[in-house]
Amino acid sequence: MELHCELLRVAHLLADAADQETLKWFRAAGLSADNKLDAGFDPVTQADRAAERAMRAVLARERPDDAILGEEDGFTDGTTGLTWVLDPIDGTRGYLCGTPTWGTLIAVGPAAGPEVGLISQPFTGERYTGVPGQARWTWRGETRDIQVRATKALSDARIFTTFPEVGTPDQGRAFHAVADRCLLTRYGTDCYAYGLLAAGQIDLVIEAGLQSYDIQGPMAVIQAAGGIVTAWDGSPAHKGGTVIAAATPELHAAARAVLMESLA
Amino acid sequence: MELHCELLRVAHLLADAADQETLKWFRAAGLSADNKLDAGFDPVTQADRAAERAMRAVLARERPDDAILGEEDGFTDGTTGLTWVLDPIDGTRGYLCGTPTWGTLIAVGPAAGPEVGLISQPFTGERYTGVPGQARWTWRGETRDIQVRATKALSDARIFTTFPEVGTPDQGRAFHAVADRCLLTRYGTDCYAYGLLAAGQIDLVIEAGLQSYDIQGPMAVIQAAGGIVTAWDGSPAHKGGTVIAAATPELHAAARAVLMESLA
Repeated sequence: MELHCELLRVAHLLADAADQETLKWFRAAGLSADNKLDAGFDPVTQADRAAERAMRAVLARERPDDAILGEEDGFTDGTTGLTWVLDPIDGTRGYLCGTPTWGTLIAVGPAAGPEVGLISQPFTGERYTGVPGQARWTWRGETRDIQVRATKALSDARIFTTFPEVGTPDQGRAFHAVADRCLLTRYGTDCYAYGLLAAGQIDLVIEAGLQSYDIQGPMAVIQAAGGIVTAWDGSPAHKGGTVIAAATPELHAAARAVLMESLA
Repeated sequence: MELHCELLRVAHLLADAADQETLKWFRAAGLSADNKLDAGFDPVTQADRAAERAMRAVLARERPDDAILGEEDGFTDGTTGLTWVLDPIDGTRGYLCGTPTWGTLIAVGPAAGPEVGLISQPFTGERYTGVPGQARWTWRGETRDIQVRATKALSDARIFTTFPEVGTPDQGRAFHAVADRCLLTRYGTDCYAYGLLAAGQIDLVIEAGLQSYDIQGPMAVIQAAGGIVTAWDGSPAHKGGTVIAAATPELHAAARAVLMESLA
């Protein structure tokens, strides 16, 4: 537990460093964006790169022996068995468009999965954090313990994902088979939806095509808040791919059953 | 112009009063929501009602002779020829789910349409305002002049709407005919998208099935920022229905042409 507290302290330092860089460029005129993929539109901003560099500088000072996996600069090996997994800006399209739905994602843990996680949304001034047994939300200087909702039935569930297409056509159909049974479906939230799930505002987030750095921070926060995060097939989610995050085991099982039936 | 300044001053007082009520209930546990429509899901919260009452109390003191049209309490006649058009919480689903995409919408003008508008998002701490010739954005105590982007071609445009279905099946197809030609499509933003358009972050917002109080505030802000807001058929938008808001006349014409072709 002492180690977790120390790791959370460092995670906040990383977020402080990233926030300075991301806010500097958010909604700035002439934000430069180049194209990371040959096909499709995946802007990478100066802020993305500057924020990862700033976080790596903090780790070099505070935790020089831990490994680092960052979206921008890849893997740097360590000797402690702990890896920091960093996404300087999750939701670059949202960032580019000015929506406060992107976030800086920070996670740290052993190879088995993240144990400490942090989601920072500096424009709204929020942080969602998780260490085993305690999830918290900070806004405008106030910090509260948070926990997931108790929703058990799909018919009561608020479900979120970023794009209506979700992933492949089959994955899209599977998502919508679940969403059609839910109370309410919303789009366009990037990583912010995972924070809302941890804070007891919504019940389900289902996505596909994620990288490990997209999910490890949110995963640690949601697990600390009492929720469940796995791949669609029930296997561990921390390496990315398909992800289902649910408030309760019952809801997780109900949504998974619909996904699996649709994909069968 | 003096009248516009006075009306903007009062609009900020209304927003101050509404913000207190909306923030009190936003993300509060046990937020009560009843169902306004027999079919479908349209939560109306205590905050919605309390915020409109609070705004009406300010108008009774500051502008007792103006008419008022409010989402919750309907029409109250006046004698000045000016009508305040109020939506205490635009985006109640977003409000219920905890996304900072909802807003309090305030407009005032003669029967011909709104001249002064304000969008307030108190969780992020933003206000977007418009009076003829001047649009402004306030965040964390800082105020900046804003203006729309110069985007002229659909292929360069960032397009937003709240729900992928948009409206009727025909309207949904027409929206997607436009979106398919755009650079980037995002969903789930409620009234916040209109603020982003006025602030030069995005280029197009296309929606259907709006009420007058859903569009009059955003319309005045966008027009003040140099943008264009009409119904899909080019007629005035201030009475609600279909809405297309665009950064430039060229983009407006290009998007309208695709909408009309799809609906023909």
